[in-house]
Amino acid sequence: MHTVPSTITLTTDFGHKGPFVAVMKGIMLSRLPTARIIDLTHEIHVHWSAEAGFWLARAYRYFPPGTVHVAVVDPGVGTARDIVAAEHDQHLFVAPDNGLLPIVLDTDQPKNAYRLSNEWMQQQDWPKTSATFHGRDIFAPLATDLASGRISLAEIGPPVDELIPSLVDRPELTSGRVQGIVIAIDHFGNLITNIDAANIETFKRPEAHAAGHSFKFESTYGKCRPGGFLALINSFGVVEIARAEGSAAESLGLSRGAPVTVQDATGSAH
Amino acid sequence: MHTVPSTITLTTDFGHKGPFVAVMKGIMLSRLPTARIIDLTHEIHVHWSAEAGFWLARAYRYFPPGTVHVAVVDPGVGTARDIVAAEHDQHLFVAPDNGLLPIVLDTDQPKNAYRLSNEWMQQQDWPKTSATFHGRDIFAPLATDLASGRISLAEIGPPVDELIPSLVDRPELTSGRVQGIVIAIDHFGNLITNIDAANIETFKRPEAHAAGHSFKFESTYGKCRPGGFLALINSFGVVEIARAEGSAAESLGLSRGAPVTVQDATGSAH
Amino acid sequence: MHTVPSTITLTTDFGHKGPFVAVMKGIMLSRLPTARIIDLTHEIHVHWSAEAGFWLARAYRYFPPGTVHVAVVDPGVGTARDIVAAEHDQHLFVAPDNGLLPIVLDTDQPKNAYRLSNEWMQQQDWPKTSATFHGRDIFAPLATDLASGRISLAEIGPPVDELIPSLVDRPELTSGRVQGIVIAIDHFGNLITNIDAANIETFKRPEAHAAGHSFKFESTYGKCRPGGFLALINSFGVVEIARAEGSAAESLGLSRGAPVTVQDATGSAH
Repeated sequence: MHTVPSTITLTTDFGHKGPFVAVMKGIMLSRLPTARIIDLTHEIHVHWSAEAGFWLARAYRYFPPGTVHVAVVDPGVGTARDIVAAEHDQHLFVAPDNGLLPIVLDTDQPKNAYRLSNEWMQQQDWPKTSATFHGRDIFAPLATDLASGRISLAEIGPPVDELIPSLVDRPELTSGRVQGIVIAIDHFGNLITNIDAANIETFKRPEAHAAGHSFKFESTYGKCRPGGFLALINSFGVVEIARAEGSAAESLGLSRGAPVTVQDATGSAH
Repeated sequence: MHTVPSTITLTTDFGHKGPFVAVMKGIMLSRLPTARIIDLTHEIHVHWSAEAGFWLARAYRYFPPGTVHVAVVDPGVGTARDIVAAEHDQHLFVAPDNGLLPIVLDTDQPKNAYRLSNEWMQQQDWPKTSATFHGRDIFAPLATDLASGRISLAEIGPPVDELIPSLVDRPELTSGRVQGIVIAIDHFGNLITNIDAANIETFKRPEAHAAGHSFKFESTYGKCRPGGFLALINSFGVVEIARAEGSAAESLGLSRGAPVTVQDATGSAH
Repeated sequence: MHTVPSTITLTTDFGHKGPFVAVMKGIMLSRLPTARIIDLTHEIHVHWSAEAGFWLARAYRYFPPGTVHVAVVDPGVGTARDIVAAEHDQHLFVAPDNGLLPIVLDTDQPKNAYRLSNEWMQQQDWPKTSATFHGRDIFAPLATDLASGRISLAEIGPPVDELIPSLVDRPELTSGRVQGIVIAIDHFGNLITNIDAANIETFKRPEAHAAGHSFKFESTYGKCRPGGFLALINSFGVVEIARAEGSAAESLGLSRGAPVTVQDATGSAH
């Protein structure tokens, strides 16, 4: 499964202050000098594993098969929460068991997931484990050793039958109507929802609703005059509410978690 | 022209939220595992291609000859705007045709520039093209295939005779006076203008003017007492207004686009 | 001492606007195409070399031996301040002589440090030196040539007997009490001090004090209920004041330089 050189992606809520991400990379390069390490993003909303799961689920396929994706959004670091590594669609994922992985694997009951065991871990030549930075002390060496093929998924501990479910419900589907939430806001202020294009593919006249406003679907931002609002199926296959050459988030005052509905307006004209 | 390994730089207004830059890199590494990808900056002022052109023009020469520079500041993504690749001074540049490239190439009438044709593109094994993220779907594979030598510049489409001109006028030169604008603000709050050192090289006593104040030229920040204002020719060869150990942008309340004038004060003493 | 490929880390206060970090990397890759360049952080508090020294001192050991660590927090760029390269604990460090290195080397009187001489520098094939960006014009080629082994530490200039001392005093130790300061604030708003775990290891009941409040020590954030405050020995071995699932910096209104005291509360119960 491994390509050479190995690719590892990093997704965290660490931001860019201090050397937190860098020392993870230092550990990785010390163990695997040829590793190619890509920052997926370090600006996940602090402690919100749902956003990390969402982005990983939508982004992993653009990396080479065999890539190891590490996600460290981990408010429970140092407590009894588990660490899980899973294979899915020819990619590997390593994350705390806190609701992040079910979004990526699209199930709470994974087929090829393993829970890191303390006994096994203590036999490795990894750094001494601190109580507050498992990204450096556990996730980095675990991901690197998986990427290099030095260890295999099944040896790290027992299989996982059931993951902690996502903190965010799947969109609610009723006839001609789907309700989801804003799951991420990008740098442009676009409101990105967890409503998949497939959820509304049968709608003849889809219309998005949020914050008391309704939004018509266009194919792209430039189809609106500057300042105009629109809904669209974005490049990651989900519904997005945007403002052409502006920030929908700022203009509408909406933030993560805000409800968004898409309705089929076909009937409503009667 | 290609060195091994190939270098690709990325300049965008995507910021660091979400996996937008990362998936471009994923596509690039999938196509060219040895590519060295350098982030030029992802904090171009949103939708302002003039700043991207300015920085690329001033920065490209510090990279190895043969580097491919990708700039995605692209409010017109998914509309009829063109995508252009150009060779200039032993470097390659790929950008939307929206005023960015004329600043880099120093002309609207390039000698070695080609417009990506849809017919040619559809024959490539590139990802399916979305309407809103050509950085991932077009710019990334195009730049990588140029960097790897898999394709050549002239095959991508017809030559370009005339580019969309820059949104920002060149500095206005009159005798003993040059008027430009603030084109970028750095992390320190230094106000960086589009006035080139060459524009004022004949001035005996240059003096900068902005926001009703005048600024004497010094060689570097530390020549002023902390808190003092100065003008200088910065390390990229343009006029900059700065505050020693402070932020000129914040103190003067100036932003991108603000007019800055440099005058030769030799005569004004009479 | 050198591993192949060579690793170089970058620590600056440049932020992420403009191509300042990128052109340093361009120079580095031009001179050493196989260099692995890691961003330690570019969000050091502007002009505050103490934070850069603190993070480098705490982070360098997570990189491979032989790594060259470049720190450019350099308000005196272009003035008479010196540039120093030093070997310490199998790592190399390059920085301006402004109080940064004594924190890393843990002494003002280094054993293996050299001052870059102008005479020697002018014999190198480096870029022309600007007055305001030595990161690109001096630090980048110097670090790269040290990393590649093209030059050796001792040839760059005379040995340094005495460095400019740190701007920040070491923590003040009295019986059962140590006083330090907030030296860095991370993305979560954790207040990171310069008080080392060793400074309080004999304390039976350590208690931290800051901003008129006192904080009990816990092993990790998750041991507190959300919103609760705590002190802890963090993963870099220093005292930190934190708020579980919140920002201590914001809640307490504390910033860099704020005094923090740890006392042994054993006696105070009497």
